[in-house]
Amino acid sequence: MSFSYVSHLYCSKCEKTYSVQEQNQLCECGAPLLVAYKMDELKESFTPQDLLARKADLWRYHELLPVQAAENVVTLGEGMTPLLHMKTIGQDMNIPHLYMKDEGLIPSGSFKSRGAAVGVSKAKELGVKELAMPTNGNAGAAWSLYCAQAGVTSTIVMPIDAPEITRKECTAAGATLYLVDGLIGDAGKIVGQAVKDYHLFDASTLKEPYRIEGKKTMGLEIAEQFGWEVPDVILYPTGGGVGLIGIYKALQELQALGWIAQDKLPRLVAVQAEGCAPIVKAWEEGKSAAEPWQDAETVAFGINVAKALGDFLILDAIKQTNGCAIRVSDEALLKELQAVASAEGAFVCPEGAATFAAARQLREDGWIKQDERVVVLNTGAGIKYPNTIEVDAPVLQPNEKIVKETVK
Amino acid sequence: MSFSYVSHLYCSKCEKTYSVQEQNQLCECGAPLLVAYKMDELKESFTPQDLLARKADLWRYHELLPVQAAENVVTLGEGMTPLLHMKTIGQDMNIPHLYMKDEGLIPSGSFKSRGAAVGVSKAKELGVKELAMPTNGNAGAAWSLYCAQAGVTSTIVMPIDAPEITRKECTAAGATLYLVDGLIGDAGKIVGQAVKDYHLFDASTLKEPYRIEGKKTMGLEIAEQFGWEVPDVILYPTGGGVGLIGIYKALQELQALGWIAQDKLPRLVAVQAEGCAPIVKAWEEGKSAAEPWQDAETVAFGINVAKALGDFLILDAIKQTNGCAIRVSDEALLKELQAVASAEGAFVCPEGAATFAAARQLREDGWIKQDERVVVLNTGAGIKYPNTIEVDAPVLQPNEKIVKETVK
Repeated sequence: MSFSYVSHLYCSKCEKTYSVQEQNQLCECGAPLLVAYKMDELKESFTPQDLLARKADLWRYHELLPVQAAENVVTLGEGMTPLLHMKTIGQDMNIPHLYMKDEGLIPSGSFKSRGAAVGVSKAKELGVKELAMPTNGNAGAAWSLYCAQAGVTSTIVMPIDAPEITRKECTAAGATLYLVDGLIGDAGKIVGQAVKDYHLFDASTLKEPYRIEGKKTMGLEIAEQFGWEVPDVILYPTGGGVGLIGIYKALQELQALGWIAQDKLPRLVAVQAEGCAPIVKAWEEGKSAAEPWQDAETVAFGINVAKALGDFLILDAIKQTNGCAIRVSDEALLKELQAVASAEGAFVCPEGAATFAAARQLREDGWIKQDERVVVLNTGAGIKYPNTIEVDAPVLQPNEKIVKETVK
Repeated sequence: MSFSYVSHLYCSKCEKTYSVQEQNQLCECGAPLLVAYKMDELKESFTPQDLLARKADLWRYHELLPVQAAENVVTLGEGMTPLLHMKTIGQDMNIPHLYMKDEGLIPSGSFKSRGAAVGVSKAKELGVKELAMPTNGNAGAAWSLYCAQAGVTSTIVMPIDAPEITRKECTAAGATLYLVDGLIGDAGKIVGQAVKDYHLFDASTLKEPYRIEGKKTMGLEIAEQFGWEVPDVILYPTGGGVGLIGIYKALQELQALGWIAQDKLPRLVAVQAEGCAPIVKAWEEGKSAAEPWQDAETVAFGINVAKALGDFLILDAIKQTNGCAIRVSDEALLKELQAVASAEGAFVCPEGAATFAAARQLREDGWIKQDERVVVLNTGAGIKYPNTIEVDAPVLQPNEKIVKETVK
């Protein structure tokens, strides 16, 4: 058995193919490249039983990942995050089979570590020495940290409003960090220029083909955790949308292997914020690509992406799975964040909270049926977003006593 | 097979035993109670192979945990955290077989969730409705969150200097939070009074017997992750010391089951900060209990514990395993925190960084040998401690360019 069954890269729009032995970015036509595997060969020799004795991290699926030599794996133990039955909040929403995939339990406290682990490992394998990327915070933090382990130099550009903790992570890892007084699109332009000026590898979302392979492991894990049965609905907070595209790709690969049924895929739901909903708008208008969103703003900063390079892939995945796109208000998601913490003890990130709010809305609308198995993705730890919670606690002196209020 | 093979509680100092069917706190003699299991019975029916198909969380060891009915388990997916080979920093320290058990990858980003998961589950099983505890921050956060899921009311008292994010977690979970203008000992006195005044269950460190059972799963996991061979040395950042006592208990239980060798235990090392080192002082003076430390202060706030109720248990565990106790300076641990992040991409907490600093020191002293397998415990995620890193990043305007300095 090979460590990886990776075959080649193919364009998501035209017919062109590329080698996985060379550094590649976008296709000549400007579209993202995707990774193909030797599925027929793999199907012969690979079964779910092979996974049983493996470690509980995303490298358990190494045959379906692009890194060809085990010694190039850069890892901090990422993956196989819990899939938790959310009984109380599910009951409250009238979705008794509500599950949360908790990506807070991963290095750097964000699902971005999946993309970084696989992306940086492959970059190392291909001899990349210096890379650059724009970020809304968490991806930059994750890539900085994995680059540190790999010995790859990283230049990160993030909006000044990105979660402050992510600056600290980049700095701790030794990245070269710039803040931009603007949005992630502005950061992207600055990175694009630096890539040209200094011949850096461009690790922007979908401008290198391997980040998506890391993200797809969320889909592999959800299928494995349900015993190779897929749920009915998966809700994903959508900014660049790589996770959603990745989950869709993972499920198609599992179908190709014959590990899940051929006739059912979960309905994929792209969840966006009211203040930045380009995918939802395109979906509602029946378009296959999205227009840039003007004056994007939301407390769920990770999904504050005005224009996604993979918009057409997101819209296609939703369409092919009979899914949908939905927007939620900041008010609704913050209320849900509080409700999930106090009902389930799970302190989720605002982007994760948005998927709960969306599930509630889709159940009320009847789009989600009561008996359906629904998975929401919490893409990061709430502790990275201290500003979502206001504290009002009394301060006692050492010899004071607690006096319980008699009237509540 | 029963879900749990718990038998009874026994005093850590006198001969008295107690039932696991009733709410218990300390022994009548004032010493902590420990949990006993029906090891002879369990030995007959339980093998390492039984674990293979189980989920990668701490409940995989349910036979060795005190919760008797599976439906009382309160869980957020905690446990089976990564054991990572720290190649680069290990080489730098001349400890090629240096491993980090990363407790940052756990709910609430702190190993305190292990104690909370098991402690709250058992409290729920025993009908506890309201509990209270003092904390240096992380334990209070963890207990608040698990209590929220269990439907148990929690009252938390923490020093005003505790990590600010932990206040947010308590509040999000719906706990009643008080800050005290003092140290954890002051918080403990306030809780003690409130427990009397309002008939609350006292969940203070070692004042209830089950938190330690959650913590011991770190020891079970380390043994399982090394294929039921124990490492040579385990370094643990020691405040209340429950983790160290728990790891020692776990290893003794594994010996009783015959799962690990009878003739070898890892040398356990209690790591403290120079500004609060009561256990180290007692160890150096050959005493079996520690004196309260005056004017305790360290950046590693989680181990800022002037007097540990279980001091005699910690000192005994060190002695029985030929271990030691060692103090490190705040300067050394902060330097190590930065070194681990930039060399390995792991952003550890200050308490975890202290164990790296201690390992380096013990290797320099020759106490750790070059070929030994050494495990350091990183007890929490660095992202909970933003103040350990200073950021100095340039701010660009949207149309600016990155200008690389020509002189480095």
